[in-house]
Amino acid sequence: MADPLMQRTVFIVSDSTGITAETFSHSVLSQFEQIEFEQIRMPFIDSARKASEAAQRINRCAEEQNQPPLVFSTLVDPDIALLIRQANCTFLDLFGTFVQHIETALGVKPSHSIGRSHMGGLSKQYNNRIEAINFSLAHDDGQFVHGLEQADVILIGVSRCGKTPTSLYLAMQYAIKAANFPLIPEDFDRGSLPATLAPFRRKLFGLSIQATRLAEVRNERRPNSQYASLKQCRHEVASAERLMRMEGIPWLSTTTKSIEEISTKVLEEVGLNRRAY
Amino acid sequence: MADPLMQRTVFIVSDSTGITAETFSHSVLSQFEQIEFEQIRMPFIDSARKASEAAQRINRCAEEQNQPPLVFSTLVDPDIALLIRQANCTFLDLFGTFVQHIETALGVKPSHSIGRSHMGGLSKQYNNRIEAINFSLAHDDGQFVHGLEQADVILIGVSRCGKTPTSLYLAMQYAIKAANFPLIPEDFDRGSLPATLAPFRRKLFGLSIQATRLAEVRNERRPNSQYASLKQCRHEVASAERLMRMEGIPWLSTTTKSIEEISTKVLEEVGLNRRAY
Repeated sequence: MADPLMQRTVFIVSDSTGITAETFSHSVLSQFEQIEFEQIRMPFIDSARKASEAAQRINRCAEEQNQPPLVFSTLVDPDIALLIRQANCTFLDLFGTFVQHIETALGVKPSHSIGRSHMGGLSKQYNNRIEAINFSLAHDDGQFVHGLEQADVILIGVSRCGKTPTSLYLAMQYAIKAANFPLIPEDFDRGSLPATLAPFRRKLFGLSIQATRLAEVRNERRPNSQYASLKQCRHEVASAERLMRMEGIPWLSTTTKSIEEISTKVLEEVGLNRRAY
Repeated sequence: MADPLMQRTVFIVSDSTGITAETFSHSVLSQFEQIEFEQIRMPFIDSARKASEAAQRINRCAEEQNQPPLVFSTLVDPDIALLIRQANCTFLDLFGTFVQHIETALGVKPSHSIGRSHMGGLSKQYNNRIEAINFSLAHDDGQFVHGLEQADVILIGVSRCGKTPTSLYLAMQYAIKAANFPLIPEDFDRGSLPATLAPFRRKLFGLSIQATRLAEVRNERRPNSQYASLKQCRHEVASAERLMRMEGIPWLSTTTKSIEEISTKVLEEVGLNRRAY
């Protein structure tokens, strides 16, 4: 048997996708670095029958490991949640813990309807997300300049500094139409922004990256090329940063940041305050 | 002043991006349909100074609206959290509420270190995500067949049934290398899967969609084309479903599902159990 202090099983139980509970569990468990967590996802638990099966699985796990697993739940229906709570586990009830408190604060009753946070493929909000994803794909890497006036933000920066994942994340998570446009050696020789971007100056946001990290990333793609050489990376990064400073374009370094962190900074700087889907 | 029962302001306060708190708040507040929530995001609150400023902003809001706003917090540091808790608000402490409970269950202390859940751009796990995104982009819509053997899953289906957003979500959220490949009229005439896909049969997962919905989606893209006609959509959808049934490929209908729901189903069916980033 594994050392009970060093390995623990975590169940994610939800009547919908479980993504909320999963994101939350990951965030809070990252505080317990000494422990290795094995995660088991149990989505779409939307009936008493499925909940009983889930509870049995949790009980089997507790028995096999000789310790109760952690269960993060976003189950909305109190009767379904009760079936899991009665299993041999540490039950962390995200929904139930806060909904009462919120109910009191708001003075209205919750609907207790299942799966409301994902309204499926037919809502306006949802269509906006899909439209934003299509826009970001079509306007990736400056490949399509027509329609840039519809962009909410246009990310600029040297090749491989993180523009594409950030654009896609902004579209996916926030329905933001994020185009991106590369800064290339010709721009640095000329010493000015690509002419295409001139009308959209106020939508521009720059990404940069440490030259040594950029060389690593480019070397994975094109090993030992001039494109990936530290010298070339140093030149491009310094030139891009000089150009952005000169043109007064806000920018940040992506070197040690995740896509989420970069995207959150972009939202702040560009003054967009969208809701997550 | 707005009707106090119908409009409420919600602050999202975090020492990191706030995405966990935002996802959670969206999920739980969707249960209070009668109320319109205005969300204000306050990420990167990682010092006492920033927390005091945030508390002042919350107090101003409470005064202006004559009612305390809701505050969803994932602040890790108890001292920083206290500064917000003391503001005039309904404080919903996601982190503090559960961390004690988890600490007791695990028998170890949390590290209380800030921003641990996003380890920035340098971890192995993070690089896997970026690699998966690049893979999914390169293998979108069957455009690049070389390297399909590296795919974790290959989504198939008629044009515009939801393959691209799902592939990108799987890559972004779960570091899954998701390729996608269109089923086109030539495949239906021939009555078999594209030959390219034959070696990867066990990685295939199908997406389908109601013909009427497909016609709507295609009409937005190419209005009044044959491609978007209901007749054509009916033919393609029926043929694709017949083909998938005949070939024994698991599939689902995307018509009323969100990207998250489709992705979660794909993970379940394909037996992939990745952690969220």
